[in-house]
Amino acid sequence: MSAITTHATSSGSSASPRAVIFDAYGTLFDVHSVIAAAEQLFPGNGNALSQLWRQKQIEYTQLRTLADPSGSHYAPFWDITLDALRHAAARLGLASSLTSVAEKRLMDEYACLSAFPDALPALKALRDRFGIPLAILSNGNPPMLDIAVKSAGMSGLFDHVLSVDSVRAYKPAAAAYELGTRAFGATRAAAREIVFVSSNGWDVAGATWFGYTTFWINRAALPLENLGVAPHETGRDMTELVVFIEGA
Amino acid sequence: MSAITTHATSSGSSASPRAVIFDAYGTLFDVHSVIAAAEQLFPGNGNALSQLWRQKQIEYTQLRTLADPSGSHYAPFWDITLDALRHAAARLGLASSLTSVAEKRLMDEYACLSAFPDALPALKALRDRFGIPLAILSNGNPPMLDIAVKSAGMSGLFDHVLSVDSVRAYKPAAAAYELGTRAFGATRAAAREIVFVSSNGWDVAGATWFGYTTFWINRAALPLENLGVAPHETGRDMTELVVFIEGA
Repeated sequence: MSAITTHATSSGSSASPRAVIFDAYGTLFDVHSVIAAAEQLFPGNGNALSQLWRQKQIEYTQLRTLADPSGSHYAPFWDITLDALRHAAARLGLASSLTSVAEKRLMDEYACLSAFPDALPALKALRDRFGIPLAILSNGNPPMLDIAVKSAGMSGLFDHVLSVDSVRAYKPAAAAYELGTRAFGATRAAAREIVFVSSNGWDVAGATWFGYTTFWINRAALPLENLGVAPHETGRDMTELVVFIEGA
Repeated sequence: MSAITTHATSSGSSASPRAVIFDAYGTLFDVHSVIAAAEQLFPGNGNALSQLWRQKQIEYTQLRTLADPSGSHYAPFWDITLDALRHAAARLGLASSLTSVAEKRLMDEYACLSAFPDALPALKALRDRFGIPLAILSNGNPPMLDIAVKSAGMSGLFDHVLSVDSVRAYKPAAAAYELGTRAFGATRAAAREIVFVSSNGWDVAGATWFGYTTFWINRAALPLENLGVAPHETGRDMTELVVFIEGA
């Protein structure tokens, strides 16, 4: 695979990436696995609520960091997730039905999102068959990531579980992406030796701008975000990521 | 009105604000006035296209500035508007119908958006009856703003038409809001002596964080964005803004 710039090892030049870093929400964990509970609570509105909840969650992270990259408006992802749920419910005229019980049920669902079925086998293949160090680099705050990784049976698979919480800046701020290079002892120029994987088009754009070699998991066959930057490779799921890495 | 911190003048303390600054798109100019043309071109999809177009336009501005506040990923608002149109059309499965003729028609509509009918009388009242200096502070690049102001019959009403293009940073970055204080010779601490008016909830939040006294024109009776910050005052239209300023 020509897209990954390989790095020199003690045994010479290696063809495999130095590491693979994964976005968490939407990439490993299915944020829309809350739809079933949302549909039970708000019949006919489960999908709309889930979509708007997710949209507002991302928007709020970006607005808070954009208004002050040094973090004075930062709030943890869990809190923003709740803020976004409440706004989405109000926007859809469901606020009066969002009781504290309903709210807790949806937030509990969010804490234990389902992993995509292709995620775990792919992570194991990359780690066990190819011996590539793996990491998560997520907007989620550490307690959220802990629970999500454990409930998905992914404990022990990652060399690093990195949260933007430590820099109080959400993706696509460079300070967030820099957590990945720093964790693997790479300079920013060496980011291209690391593969960054995300299902979120805006996240892939940010990681590409930062300098990573990027793989976009385009599960929903969406058009590319029109940001003047393209991922180095695209696949439909994590299985195609493994093929991409294998061919490296 | 207690919300505006008044400033001292040569004749003592004045009750009126030092200036009123307006967001342009969505506040003075109706971005959804393109719906009619969009509906003609894409029957049954005009509203969806207009909504997604606007959402992507705002998202792309914010992503580009967030990824690098110093502006290395900056692109002018006109270009981003076209990028967003193309993505929105693709997302809705309309890409094959977005011919260059259709694209030009929609972009031409965007260049000459309708002003909200309450905008011009309210601007004239603020300027002529109360003698308050007025400005626009917009994401739009200068040629877009020139045409929009002229085609709305608003030429000569503004002391300043400020574009974020001069700092290559989109709202809600502080560098963008700072254009307003600087234009009126105010320190950032004195931003509270200036009223910032926007229909966009995220813009009102950003302006409030920056330090302006803020007035949210909530035309669509939307719930407040849940960002931990509230506008100082809210009204349904520009007429209510005049009442607010008059009561100051």
